[in-house]
Amino acid sequence: MITIVAKQIIRKDCIEQYHALAKELVEKSRAEEGCISYTSNQSIQDERIHCFIEVWKDQEAIDIHNATEHFTRIVPQFGAMFDGPEVVDLYTESV
Amino acid sequence: MITIVAKQIIRKDCIEQYHALAKELVEKSRAEEGCISYTSNQSIQDERIHCFIEVWKDQEAIDIHNATEHFTRIVPQFGAMFDGPEVVDLYTESV
Repeated sequence: MITIVAKQIIRKDCIEQYHALAKELVEKSRAEEGCISYTSNQSIQDERIHCFIEVWKDQEAIDIHNATEHFTRIVPQFGAMFDGPEVVDLYTESV
Repeated sequence: MITIVAKQIIRKDCIEQYHALAKELVEKSRAEEGCISYTSNQSIQDERIHCFIEVWKDQEAIDIHNATEHFTRIVPQFGAMFDGPEVVDLYTESV
């Protein structure tokens, strides 16, 4: 399993639009065969801070995800909403 | 539910010791009543980068967790292993 944490700071005026797109991305990603879990999360401390926490079966599942219609259509739209650089970390469980 | 992502950069010479302590923290935290999930994760891109991803029932469960014997004994020991500031974000699901 591989866990992705993609942390994004979203401009305040874009948060509503971001949530609508994130909702579609979450729903369609969860329906993928290699997706174990997929959530969109908003910080309690700062409403601008968001992250996707995604658990995938393996790298092949991530490669398939990155090539889907919903990923290639929705994810590029997030870029214009960022209020800072996105940080994407890929993890495996360490213990 | 509240999700905590606690991201830590661990000195290379401390990684083995960190994993041993993280293992105990994970096991004991998972046994708490308000804990929904708790994982310790190591970056695929940089072996020094780790994060705990924790899902708790509510803030009260986090407060109880933060006062447990295992939390108050183990977590302070991580500080000496850090190779940079820890970043702790608390999230709720946004969609």
